[in-house]
Amino acid sequence: MTDARLIPIGLVRSPFKRAEDIPRERNIDPRGFDDVEGTIELFPEYEAGLKDIDGFSHIIVIFGFHQAEPRPSGGGLLVYPPRQTEPRGVFATRSPHRPNPIGLTIVRLRGRAGCALHVSGLDMVEGTPVLDIKPYTRKDRKSRIKTGWIK
Amino acid sequence: MTDARLIPIGLVRSPFKRAEDIPRERNIDPRGFDDVEGTIELFPEYEAGLKDIDGFSHIIVIFGFHQAEPRPSGGGLLVYPPRQTEPRGVFATRSPHRPNPIGLTIVRLRGRAGCALHVSGLDMVEGTPVLDIKPYTRKDRKSRIKTGWIK
Repeated sequence: MTDARLIPIGLVRSPFKRAEDIPRERNIDPRGFDDVEGTIELFPEYEAGLKDIDGFSHIIVIFGFHQAEPRPSGGGLLVYPPRQTEPRGVFATRSPHRPNPIGLTIVRLRGRAGCALHVSGLDMVEGTPVLDIKPYTRKDRKSRIKTGWIK
Repeated sequence: MTDARLIPIGLVRSPFKRAEDIPRERNIDPRGFDDVEGTIELFPEYEAGLKDIDGFSHIIVIFGFHQAEPRPSGGGLLVYPPRQTEPRGVFATRSPHRPNPIGLTIVRLRGRAGCALHVSGLDMVEGTPVLDIKPYTRKDRKSRIKTGWIK
């Protein structure tokens, strides 16, 4: 894997039709997107991989920031998150403008119909390509965390 | 992003020198890898992106399963996790054998020296290519979770 090719396995169906529709200010509140519902639609050829997913209350969705501009290697490593006057290292942020345009959101799984997962907690735009789904487990729940510049 | 090319931004330095060295049975215990220390070494050209990372107690490491065999699209969507007699849908597991060979581990950040992050909670093999680092935030900590077939 010196350079890996990823293939979309599905798409996000979101109430946010354009990137500008996403209320970025909700990021301040850890539960800010909890009421945003939508669907993760896998392509039919991946449906068999969803067996047993129903037993999980939360899933990790890995997706492509398909609207992000590619940044040159070594360039653009500082970003200004919303309402921040100081630039932050991109790896200390969830900015879409990263060396590899991969995003990650943990959503609540509300139900499944075939290859469609009904979820809440979406912060992605309509049509976002899905790259992977993983179950959220006890290993992923950390206690006594510190979150640096994020108040 | 119909097919995205990803580039490694660094490497994992792990006490597990070969895949067979990773004690898979520790996966039963959510804290099974907590005492495994190692280093996430970013390539020097990405060091600027680590500004502000020090304030976070935990980071999400996204990496390539570089030793996993590629699976044909639509094939290999059921896997047998360790000690499971029933096949599970790959998206309900953290198996390395997935349509896109991307892995994710949340580790504790113990310190930083330049482009090297000293971490604990590693479950990756030596030389694993790192694709992204994201801060672990309150949004990522979910309560009242159900974890399906994982007891």
